[in-house]
Amino acid sequence: MSPNTREKSALMIERIKSALDKIVPILIVVSIIDFSLSTLPDLNEDIRNSINLIEQFIVIVFSIEYIFNLMYRGRIKYAFSFYGVIDLLAILPYYLALGLDLRSIRLLRFFRVFRLLKLTKYTKALKRLAMAFDSSKEELIIFSISTLVLLYLAGVGIYYFENPVQPEIFSSVFDGLWWAVATLTTVGYGDAYPVTAGGKFFTFIILMLGLGIVAVPTGIVSSSLSSIKKKD
Amino acid sequence: MSPNTREKSALMIERIKSALDKIVPILIVVSIIDFSLSTLPDLNEDIRNSINLIEQFIVIVFSIEYIFNLMYRGRIKYAFSFYGVIDLLAILPYYLALGLDLRSIRLLRFFRVFRLLKLTKYTKALKRLAMAFDSSKEELIIFSISTLVLLYLAGVGIYYFENPVQPEIFSSVFDGLWWAVATLTTVGYGDAYPVTAGGKFFTFIILMLGLGIVAVPTGIVSSSLSSIKKKD
Amino acid sequence: MSPNTREKSALMIERIKSALDKIVPILIVVSIIDFSLSTLPDLNEDIRNSINLIEQFIVIVFSIEYIFNLMYRGRIKYAFSFYGVIDLLAILPYYLALGLDLRSIRLLRFFRVFRLLKLTKYTKALKRLAMAFDSSKEELIIFSISTLVLLYLAGVGIYYFENPVQPEIFSSVFDGLWWAVATLTTVGYGDAYPVTAGGKFFTFIILMLGLGIVAVPTGIVSSSLSSIKKKD
Amino acid sequence: MSPNTREKSALMIERIKSALDKIVPILIVVSIIDFSLSTLPDLNEDIRNSINLIEQFIVIVFSIEYIFNLMYRGRIKYAFSFYGVIDLLAILPYYLALGLDLRSIRLLRFFRVFRLLKLTKYTKALKRLAMAFDSSKEELIIFSISTLVLLYLAGVGIYYFENPVQPEIFSSVFDGLWWAVATLTTVGYGDAYPVTAGGKFFTFIILMLGLGIVAVPTGIVSSSLSSIKKKD
Repeated sequence: MSPNTREKSALMIERIKSALDKIVPILIVVSIIDFSLSTLPDLNEDIRNSINLIEQFIVIVFSIEYIFNLMYRGRIKYAFSFYGVIDLLAILPYYLALGLDLRSIRLLRFFRVFRLLKLTKYTKALKRLAMAFDSSKEELIIFSISTLVLLYLAGVGIYYFENPVQPEIFSSVFDGLWWAVATLTTVGYGDAYPVTAGGKFFTFIILMLGLGIVAVPTGIVSSSLSSIKKKD
Repeated sequence: MSPNTREKSALMIERIKSALDKIVPILIVVSIIDFSLSTLPDLNEDIRNSINLIEQFIVIVFSIEYIFNLMYRGRIKYAFSFYGVIDLLAILPYYLALGLDLRSIRLLRFFRVFRLLKLTKYTKALKRLAMAFDSSKEELIIFSISTLVLLYLAGVGIYYFENPVQPEIFSSVFDGLWWAVATLTTVGYGDAYPVTAGGKFFTFIILMLGLGIVAVPTGIVSSSLSSIKKKD
Repeated sequence: MSPNTREKSALMIERIKSALDKIVPILIVVSIIDFSLSTLPDLNEDIRNSINLIEQFIVIVFSIEYIFNLMYRGRIKYAFSFYGVIDLLAILPYYLALGLDLRSIRLLRFFRVFRLLKLTKYTKALKRLAMAFDSSKEELIIFSISTLVLLYLAGVGIYYFENPVQPEIFSSVFDGLWWAVATLTTVGYGDAYPVTAGGKFFTFIILMLGLGIVAVPTGIVSSSLSSIKKKD
Repeated sequence: MSPNTREKSALMIERIKSALDKIVPILIVVSIIDFSLSTLPDLNEDIRNSINLIEQFIVIVFSIEYIFNLMYRGRIKYAFSFYGVIDLLAILPYYLALGLDLRSIRLLRFFRVFRLLKLTKYTKALKRLAMAFDSSKEELIIFSISTLVLLYLAGVGIYYFENPVQPEIFSSVFDGLWWAVATLTTVGYGDAYPVTAGGKFFTFIILMLGLGIVAVPTGIVSSSLSSIKKKD
């Protein structure tokens, strides 16, 4: 290769790189919307075909990107790096599904959402969040344990009060745990709630004690994040 | 015009200005209540007529205000300013609806609520909120993206767990997304909730991870606001 | 009166005062429980009589307290003071009800809960809360207005999206407002929720914008309170 | 005993100690899962037997631990210490249940969850939480009272508005109190909610006033915790 050709090829690689950097984030979002639409029931044949075509096109571009990265970003090192694995996970399910019957690909289809992780290359948020979690690791662990203990005691307590009256809804401690999760996070779906006076009073006590404890880890992460922000 | 007449007219303009400044906020609130009442079903003819009369009176006053502002607050400059556009939007739907049949005015009727934006002239809150959002723009964008990614992963996950058991309620990823919004904001309407053990455990994990992330942008805005307040 | 008798009577007044200070808070709590029990349906005659007897006993003690305060804490000045009015409100409903038929006393019965306000004499919390609200009055007013505007826009928006599909549940803007209150406070009873794609997306947008704004006044009061605490 | 034997026995005690310290936390978690599984309805005979076997094994290990602690950690002093009582509570229900018929052991079974408290030996979280509560005791008491008063007034108010229209759901002030707990903590199960215009407006007012007051104690504990963390 003459120096001229080498120069040209280096320029071309640079151009492909910058083109991929522009196209890939858009294709990730398109791919995610495409996948979401594909789960809609009662789609007619035409729309389903279009959805599949878009998926095939995206897989081709992502495959080209993977091969390109493999060739020009240090083969083995890239292949085993975090983004190398994610880039592979973004296309592998498609190729695996080709050789399998339709039943077993249900889980594989869902692996497509890992393409979202490709986006993490383009955002600082995840890095900052990871730093915030890391700098308050010890607190988070001890308060997570406290939260788990509280959730468990709440779940057992409500099972004790409500099981004799609502044996269908609070059929075991696990149903009590589900109630505890929905209640202490204040989601409150309304699929399970106490009806006995004892159960209601117990809920009141647990909420008064629990809301503070559940809210604390959130506060820890928030304050970590703001102190990391200040350092930047 | 003799200097005397000019003086008199300047004085009159001043008086009209201050009168409008007093009347307009009250009329905005009256107009909003009038609109709300007009949506009540089963109103008798008399009340409906009164509501329309009040609406007509308000449109007349707002029209006078608009013409007055157009004449005495720099014609074209005012017409294309933020408040000029809002003042026009507050009266235009009424005049447009006069020339149209009843069916197509449904959306136009709702434009009346933009009159509320006329109130922003009188409050500092919106300005301060805008400053708070502006000073923490970068953080808000990256955490909004994190929130969107988390909401999406939650939506896809619950669809994976619940669709085989509740195909009616979790019919597509979009139903999963709606569940994720209602759950991670802790609203929890109870129209969609997991019933499988896997889905319930997934909800627990997502809530433990997610409440912190969803709460962070709120914290960012709050702390921005309080630091802006201190500077004042 | 000889100096001796005067001294004795001053001592006795002091004793009655300190006795009342000990008994009254307990009687307030007893009275509140007594009132709550009296609202239970299907009580038998015996229990209902006991409840009435306790109520009569409490009214007698509170009447003695009122007369005592009137005599020994500067007649007219006490009668028109904050606590004088509350002390009167705590007993007046009972005497008024004696001369009235049973139907019209429904509202009067509820006035009994104002006895709780007698407790404010014994707590510093209300005073501190009042100070916290006072020191951040301006902020609270402007953010309360923002919250009201947001609630209104949310209510009108959801009415626009949901009324054509659920005319029973979102029958007017007022139903939309009720939905907005239950949603933006994240209570989410589940009596009203969007079912259309547009309404669900609108809810998502409103929650993302709104949770921050609704949470801000809470944050303002909390930080005011903690700064007041530090000054103490 | 020769010095050699004494040394050997001291070494052995040390070894048993460190072995127990490793096994006991694991057994507590196993015991908790075992108990949870035992509440599942429709378990077949084989699984139920395995669950009972695991329970018996755990009780034996915990009994050995208790006797060991009693012998080598100062008999009477340990027996009446906090952890001594908890260690006894962790095994006593099992032995008591042996001599009783099946009906009366329902409550005893639930005492097993107190084994979780054995875990507190291994965590600093509880200690820190206790310190945080202690250092802001006074504030917590006065705001707890404020919260109770607010909950009561909310409960009585909603009873007043809703009882005439929904006599089944708001049958007494106690039902109103339950509604107040579920609403002011924003759990919102949806088992009880206002349907009258008055009740809905009252809910709006109570939520605007109440969310701030209920959130304050949480904020107090959070800020106490973070200041304790800084001192460490």
